[in-house]
Amino acid sequence: MSSGILLIDCPDRRGIVASIAQFLYEHGANILHADQHQDNEAGRFFMRIEWALEGFDLGEKSFVEQFEPIAKSFQMEWRLELSATRPKIAIFVSRDQHCLVDLLYRTQIDELKGDVALIISNHANAKAVAAFHGIPFHEIPITSATKLEAEKREIELLEAAGVDLIILARYMQILSPQIVERYPRRIINVHHSFLPAFTGARPYHAAFARGVKLIGATSHYVTNDLDEGPIIEQDVTRISHRDQLQDLIQKGRDLERVVLSRAVRWHLTHRILFYGNKTVIFD
Amino acid sequence: MSSGILLIDCPDRRGIVASIAQFLYEHGANILHADQHQDNEAGRFFMRIEWALEGFDLGEKSFVEQFEPIAKSFQMEWRLELSATRPKIAIFVSRDQHCLVDLLYRTQIDELKGDVALIISNHANAKAVAAFHGIPFHEIPITSATKLEAEKREIELLEAAGVDLIILARYMQILSPQIVERYPRRIINVHHSFLPAFTGARPYHAAFARGVKLIGATSHYVTNDLDEGPIIEQDVTRISHRDQLQDLIQKGRDLERVVLSRAVRWHLTHRILFYGNKTVIFD
Amino acid sequence: MSSGILLIDCPDRRGIVASIAQFLYEHGANILHADQHQDNEAGRFFMRIEWALEGFDLGEKSFVEQFEPIAKSFQMEWRLELSATRPKIAIFVSRDQHCLVDLLYRTQIDELKGDVALIISNHANAKAVAAFHGIPFHEIPITSATKLEAEKREIELLEAAGVDLIILARYMQILSPQIVERYPRRIINVHHSFLPAFTGARPYHAAFARGVKLIGATSHYVTNDLDEGPIIEQDVTRISHRDQLQDLIQKGRDLERVVLSRAVRWHLTHRILFYGNKTVIFD
Amino acid sequence: MSSGILLIDCPDRRGIVASIAQFLYEHGANILHADQHQDNEAGRFFMRIEWALEGFDLGEKSFVEQFEPIAKSFQMEWRLELSATRPKIAIFVSRDQHCLVDLLYRTQIDELKGDVALIISNHANAKAVAAFHGIPFHEIPITSATKLEAEKREIELLEAAGVDLIILARYMQILSPQIVERYPRRIINVHHSFLPAFTGARPYHAAFARGVKLIGATSHYVTNDLDEGPIIEQDVTRISHRDQLQDLIQKGRDLERVVLSRAVRWHLTHRILFYGNKTVIFD
Repeated sequence: MSSGILLIDCPDRRGIVASIAQFLYEHGANILHADQHQDNEAGRFFMRIEWALEGFDLGEKSFVEQFEPIAKSFQMEWRLELSATRPKIAIFVSRDQHCLVDLLYRTQIDELKGDVALIISNHANAKAVAAFHGIPFHEIPITSATKLEAEKREIELLEAAGVDLIILARYMQILSPQIVERYPRRIINVHHSFLPAFTGARPYHAAFARGVKLIGATSHYVTNDLDEGPIIEQDVTRISHRDQLQDLIQKGRDLERVVLSRAVRWHLTHRILFYGNKTVIFD
Repeated sequence: MSSGILLIDCPDRRGIVASIAQFLYEHGANILHADQHQDNEAGRFFMRIEWALEGFDLGEKSFVEQFEPIAKSFQMEWRLELSATRPKIAIFVSRDQHCLVDLLYRTQIDELKGDVALIISNHANAKAVAAFHGIPFHEIPITSATKLEAEKREIELLEAAGVDLIILARYMQILSPQIVERYPRRIINVHHSFLPAFTGARPYHAAFARGVKLIGATSHYVTNDLDEGPIIEQDVTRISHRDQLQDLIQKGRDLERVVLSRAVRWHLTHRILFYGNKTVIFD
Repeated sequence: MSSGILLIDCPDRRGIVASIAQFLYEHGANILHADQHQDNEAGRFFMRIEWALEGFDLGEKSFVEQFEPIAKSFQMEWRLELSATRPKIAIFVSRDQHCLVDLLYRTQIDELKGDVALIISNHANAKAVAAFHGIPFHEIPITSATKLEAEKREIELLEAAGVDLIILARYMQILSPQIVERYPRRIINVHHSFLPAFTGARPYHAAFARGVKLIGATSHYVTNDLDEGPIIEQDVTRISHRDQLQDLIQKGRDLERVVLSRAVRWHLTHRILFYGNKTVIFD
Repeated sequence: MSSGILLIDCPDRRGIVASIAQFLYEHGANILHADQHQDNEAGRFFMRIEWALEGFDLGEKSFVEQFEPIAKSFQMEWRLELSATRPKIAIFVSRDQHCLVDLLYRTQIDELKGDVALIISNHANAKAVAAFHGIPFHEIPITSATKLEAEKREIELLEAAGVDLIILARYMQILSPQIVERYPRRIINVHHSFLPAFTGARPYHAAFARGVKLIGATSHYVTNDLDEGPIIEQDVTRISHRDQLQDLIQKGRDLERVVLSRAVRWHLTHRILFYGNKTVIFD
């Protein structure tokens, strides 16, 4: 069923819900889901509302025109999304393919509602699985000397494909600002620790050394501050002294798959709002 | 902060939210929280909306009068709750006091916002802890021969104290319909299994015999069908072959405390709606 | 590193560990892992002991000869496994391929140390992924009329391939005794519920109808009693009223993958002992 | 049942288990539980072995004499514990009593097998509950000016009571080295975060600010490096944008109770071995 999704973030004031609900009602919206959140301390209001387009009397353009006055009066930041629009995805991957294979299967069965337009890797390993799924694969090796140039080529590919979302599916290179700033809140990474514990390289090694009793994984939006972007999802699993480093890495793969795919699903279904450096997830 | 809470359950139709939001806005409500749920398949709409009473221009009685026409037009089942009203609680307990001690501490620090008016037990064990908290304690032994009589005395005590909520905090007697039907959706039990697995007596023994790898606990409303009432909350914990029956019982106590207290908190803050034999929890 | 693994199950008596440890020590075993479990109530002793074969002075045949007297004196049920021997695996699958794709990736990266010798399905869906991994694929449709005949062909294929382990990776047919009894404790199934809750068909539908707050998955050995075989692993995930049936199915897939793959890993590394209808997992 | 518990930590070498098992067998030990762990990388061996004293022919003193040669030959660090010896416990607490109330109930029902000899607090709040349990209560206010003097009085009390284990049950003062060094590996603290994330003061505030999706609690041994001692146990619970700071604190209390009490139970039953700054838990 084709639906419209309205995402709103504004100062909290009386009458917001009444205005929005009245507007949608007047135009024949059959509401399917609505979620709202008020941060009473910060005085901030968040809303996600989804309605069936069948019977709704506004097109995308007239919606914008007619809703704008309401939005203005409440100082809303807002956007309208259409469930029928399938975002275009680029997946970046290095040697380990467990997240990639997982994401591709999920898109194949339409659990993730987006189209993987291309796969970019600094290694050749993923070439076969990309071919199996019929997805263009670009091997772009990276060294510190070639990084900026290599990224320029990546940007060309991303732009040529009209990419909406970049997924770093265990991509072991740090993106430089020229990419990050071009895709604000549109690059999702999975970090293999329970952030903010064990930022940076080799988090399983660090967790093993510290002797933690649970290991974690975190999916987050990428910003120029490494591992400091807004957290989308986290999960943990129990380990014991019987688990050696290799066991942590193996158990961690199961976490990474799940934590990354949940983040991607919520992003693709427009369930994520921002809140300083935090996220609101309307799941 | 004193607040009003409106709980609504009705057939899903266009315009419900607009009507409610408009009504509250017109009377000066400053909305603190709002949650709604639509079951598109069943065509049912659920809402919980909470607003500050400060600045709201309707008292309880006039709210009822003025909201009733809206309620009627949408065929709503609804109720209004006031956060300032502290429900009166009766706790039933048998020998094991872990849930009782836990609930009493939570009420003492006002984590659970209700007043424990009395404790009823078929054993004397809890007498001291009741006295420590200054709560009337009634030892009412039960045998199959005396059950109906004993329950009559319990009903007198419950009515004399004006009890709103009965908590069965590991009370090992089955209530007969004369009590259950007097307190519909107002008796919460904790069952020491992951329902619907292991209904009835000695669920840890049954779990141990079956060789499950997780044990659970379930809090639910009590109906005349044993262990079949609407589930409010469940949780599980991992066990292994190293855990003997006594370990299951000990690990289970930690589950029971948490699962029961969450249910009580949600009930006391009017976060639970019903849905056939299911619950909607607006947490 | 090549290792020997000794698995023992016997009545609990003084001197067992001393005898085994002394035997291994005398033959130069460098012990890598040892786990034991005593069920004091049942008076039963279980042990898994793994040692490096380098420097160990017994071959497989002489081990059997020389260990047999000790085994006899303690009435042991025992077996010797060699880590170098890679079990041959058959995967049965129906339409849903999430477990299959997951298992194939895990064997590809050698996380699961076995060789998938063939894939059998009552549908054609998995043909492409089998080909991608270079694994023989056999489509064998099943109807109630053709079942016994179809299974006979399956048995021929299993025997021709010398299969050690059968994995039912969301195979929606019930195996008849002619297969089950040929592979005792060597057929692993994943059931999409937290057993013993929701046995039989359509467990997610049943869980949804009952209004549980957690859904689960269970991997177990297959016996002739449907869903009653020894449980190997279970896990759960939280759901809420916001989750519709499709969400349960989607969340369940993540559970099924993890719960099934853990069971397979433990089986392949000889970590599972039996105990009436229960398992001891030396993880 | 009275039992002996032998805890061993030594370089890994062939013949250790054979020697120990033979020694115990010769003296008539009926082994109840045995756990061992080998860190193959570090070349370290750990063992916990528990046996019934009934029928065992060595007293404590002769055990030490006769086991010492074996211990020496394998360079063991070892100790013998007797389950019949009940450790004496001091609980330190500040204003929040949830962990204290929980620990006292667990000792009351003998889930925790130790005797609480005294409660020390820098506030008066816990006086009543201490009296209810008949445990000496000492209010010892602390300011930075009086800290060393106050601690001297605490040390006198601890020594007068012959305390074996100190539990910091949400004690909001940092112990100075004069106490910490007197009770090495015998002071257990609960920190209200998932260490090493959010060390130091106000971890829930920090977690809330960072926007994590899970909060945690950690029990650990206290060393002079704040929040850096060996971790014993950790657990987490899920939060969402709907949880305000107060909800984190409330949910955290449930974690703290469980995580602290598990650590205390393992300590009291001699299940914890050390390993650099890490722990081995033979649960």
